[in-house]
Amino acid sequence: MTEVEIEYCVPCGLLDRAEEMQHNLLQQFGQRLDRVALVTGENGVLRVTVDGERVWDKSEDEYDPDLVLRRVRSHVSP
Amino acid sequence: MTEVEIEYCVPCGLLDRAEEMQHNLLQQFGQRLDRVALVTGENGVLRVTVDGERVWDKSEDEYDPDLVLRRVRSHVSP
Repeated sequence: MTEVEIEYCVPCGLLDRAEEMQHNLLQQFGQRLDRVALVTGENGVLRVTVDGERVWDKSEDEYDPDLVLRRVRSHVSP
Repeated sequence: MTEVEIEYCVPCGLLDRAEEMQHNLLQQFGQRLDRVALVTGENGVLRVTVDGERVWDKSEDEYDPDLVLRRVRSHVSP
């Protein structure tokens, strides 16, 4: 089971960015992912976790779609 | 906690339709939803559940974005 969560700040208008990240992941990995959930949040959050482990966080990382894919890939069965 | 799941058939190319449904729900209800998960599936599935209860299913219902919103709304705290 590989479950990705993307928590995003609703009041900051980060839904589009979260959807873009989600789309890239589902396009890239398809059924190698069980699910990708968009989780509503606030206070500027934009964070990606895989099976509970944080792999990308706006507060620490530059936004780079390929970086997110690479970090998730290491958690996805080949 | 209001959790929505949208299971969609990956091989059938239903990702776009699932994303459209998800976008409508998150635009409409924002933080009144805790999360909306896209769940990968096959065999033609396109199904929306709210807290585990099925509210819309491609095998029984016409695709009508407003219908999906109405059915989810009855599960969302005012």
